Amino acid sequence: MLVNGKQMRPIWFDKASGKVRVIDQRRLPHELEIMDLDSVDRVIYAIQEMVVRGAPLIGVTGAYGVRVALGATSDEAAFRNECRRIRQARPTAVNLAWAVDRVQEKVLLSQDAEARLTAARHEADTIAEEEVDNCRRIGEHGARLIARIAESKGGAAVNVLTHCNAGWLACVEWGTATAMIYVAHEQGIPVHVWVDETRPLNQGARLTAWELGQGGIPHTVITDNAGGHLMQHGMVDLVVVGTDRSTYTGDVANKIGTYLKALAARDNGVPFYVALPSSTFDWQMRDGLKEIPIEERHPDEVRYVQGRTAAGIDHVLITPPDSPAANFAFDVTPARLVTGFITERGVCAADEKAVLELFPEQRGQGRA
Amino acid sequence: MLVNGKQMRPIWFDKASGKVRVIDQRRLPHELEIMDLDSVDRVIYAIQEMVVRGAPLIGVTGAYGVRVALGATSDEAAFRNECRRIRQARPTAVNLAWAVDRVQEKVLLSQDAEARLTAARHEADTIAEEEVDNCRRIGEHGARLIARIAESKGGAAVNVLTHCNAGWLACVEWGTATAMIYVAHEQGIPVHVWVDETRPLNQGARLTAWELGQGGIPHTVITDNAGGHLMQHGMVDLVVVGTDRSTYTGDVANKIGTYLKALAARDNGVPFYVALPSSTFDWQMRDGLKEIPIEERHPDEVRYVQGRTAAGIDHVLITPPDSPAANFAFDVTPARLVTGFITERGVCAADEKAVLELFPEQRGQGRA
Repeated sequence: MLVNGKQMRPIWFDKASGKVRVIDQRRLPHELEIMDLDSVDRVIYAIQEMVVRGAPLIGVTGAYGVRVALGATSDEAAFRNECRRIRQARPTAVNLAWAVDRVQEKVLLSQDAEARLTAARHEADTIAEEEVDNCRRIGEHGARLIARIAESKGGAAVNVLTHCNAGWLACVEWGTATAMIYVAHEQGIPVHVWVDETRPLNQGARLTAWELGQGGIPHTVITDNAGGHLMQHGMVDLVVVGTDRSTYTGDVANKIGTYLKALAARDNGVPFYVALPSSTFDWQMRDGLKEIPIEERHPDEVRYVQGRTAAGIDHVLITPPDSPAANFAFDVTPARLVTGFITERGVCAADEKAVLELFPEQRGQGRA
Repeated sequence: MLVNGKQMRPIWFDKASGKVRVIDQRRLPHELEIMDLDSVDRVIYAIQEMVVRGAPLIGVTGAYGVRVALGATSDEAAFRNECRRIRQARPTAVNLAWAVDRVQEKVLLSQDAEARLTAARHEADTIAEEEVDNCRRIGEHGARLIARIAESKGGAAVNVLTHCNAGWLACVEWGTATAMIYVAHEQGIPVHVWVDETRPLNQGARLTAWELGQGGIPHTVITDNAGGHLMQHGMVDLVVVGTDRSTYTGDVANKIGTYLKALAARDNGVPFYVALPSSTFDWQMRDGLKEIPIEERHPDEVRYVQGRTAAGIDHVLITPPDSPAANFAFDVTPARLVTGFITERGVCAADEKAVLELFPEQRGQGRA
């Protein structure tokens, strides 16, 4: 997508250097820094420290991570172990294990070292391009929802509320939740986005606002507390979020606070959609609330806020220095609060029957 | 209440200097600074810029503000005009107009300049002491709710979630929502408080966490996004908040985000209480959602976060510098989501009948 008018992705394989490169998303929107992922430790660091984040991008990073692991060792046991380490870097996004497994399987089909490297690179590229394609399709399906609302509003801007960053920075291009916004904007449909800042790490205020600004999309940053009030007063036509893992039965793990917005949407008759590529479905789990592992991160992410002072990027302590804090990174929105899933194959209800009708090849896989 | 082991209030009349003094709550928890309110402009500044905040304290500050106005002019028209200016400093907290009117009426009963000064001071002191007394009673009624939950948990700590600061810093002593926590703690009932940080101005992370720390109450700071997840997992026994204005029909204006917590409480069967002195009831309004004025504050409060760096108190910019932001300060939780009101006269349902049974003298006043 466009950064200062030039095409850019959050991850790419640099052919000249043979290195995997990523945008360091911790520095945005204040600085645009590139980081090389030239070792497995660096790949794991990037995933854990949220240099890269967002379920599809974590998956793609894991996929390229397998290539990095293969470049560092030709011993198969060591390689498998490195893949396992990458796979476990973060627990909630299901794409990570899925992508690592997929590339690793392709690699192990061959015995030849050179062929393995090529296979890894090729499969990671394929996953990245599939995600681009999936996101574009998600955008096209979702834009039809926006177009219908725009019609009913007689051409007034459609107000979309989103939480966290499910934009191209979380994917490769287009994004999941934002794809429909970009496509609608392309189609000349007037859209305005309410951007939840998304504490503790402010992916909304930092990343979604930056992306939308770069793309010329009208938007307004709000605190995470504000969405209910906006919905009570008819200022939100549609809520759309991404997800780190959704069960095929319709439960949605996403950034902490998503559940609160889903409750407000239900209370005010506002449609609540979840946009996801099929790689983010968990085809094994039936009960998201009980089964999806919820990562608990360091309490300093709550105690401190990062931003720009006159002197540069810094952290400010907002609590008393000795206050305990807790930092659950995700919550699970139960299927009953989800109006629908927007997938690369179309929009469907957030229930087992509708999901398996769109993805019939998953029937009989795992528990599905 | 205790600050570093010494008794302190957020506002007091200093007899030696004849000045009204307040804690500058914008600097907490990092610095404890005192500000003199020695002119009407200063009183208005303190209220608008949130040197003081919280409905009962805004009321008491307005009450002392009338004394300040009277000290600056003996002209009755000018005095009335100054009172009107103070009355309008902030729109949502109903206590402000109520307290200013009450002191002004007492003043105007007398013609004598000296008697007027004494009357103003006396009435403001009376309001302050009444609020202390009300808050203590609120605490005693509320502590019985906590005690009942503690019994049902076999002595395990009762987990209370609160939003914003409805503590002694928002009142004069005890607080409204926190009063029951302090009283329960005094009574030896184990309590643990989940403190919503409360963006944008972080009154939870800054003020409630500081107060509870000073009072030795176990607590954990969380983002505003976290409460729903905690309630889904049985980690909250009770939600209690204060209010800036509640209609006698049960609708509750409070810091933005309160409504989202009320929705989560309802969805998870967690009791949701609102603690308030009778001065915070609006006896005129029937429909809080339509009628209570919601203040919109400067968008920079969303774009920037204040805290402590190594160099001292500073602001960090969290959004791109050109991102628009919106800053609605309050929302309204409809009566249907409120389990009950905790008032100085006891606990009652959040409906007209129950409220007027506790406050029968309000029948036939205004629309009530």
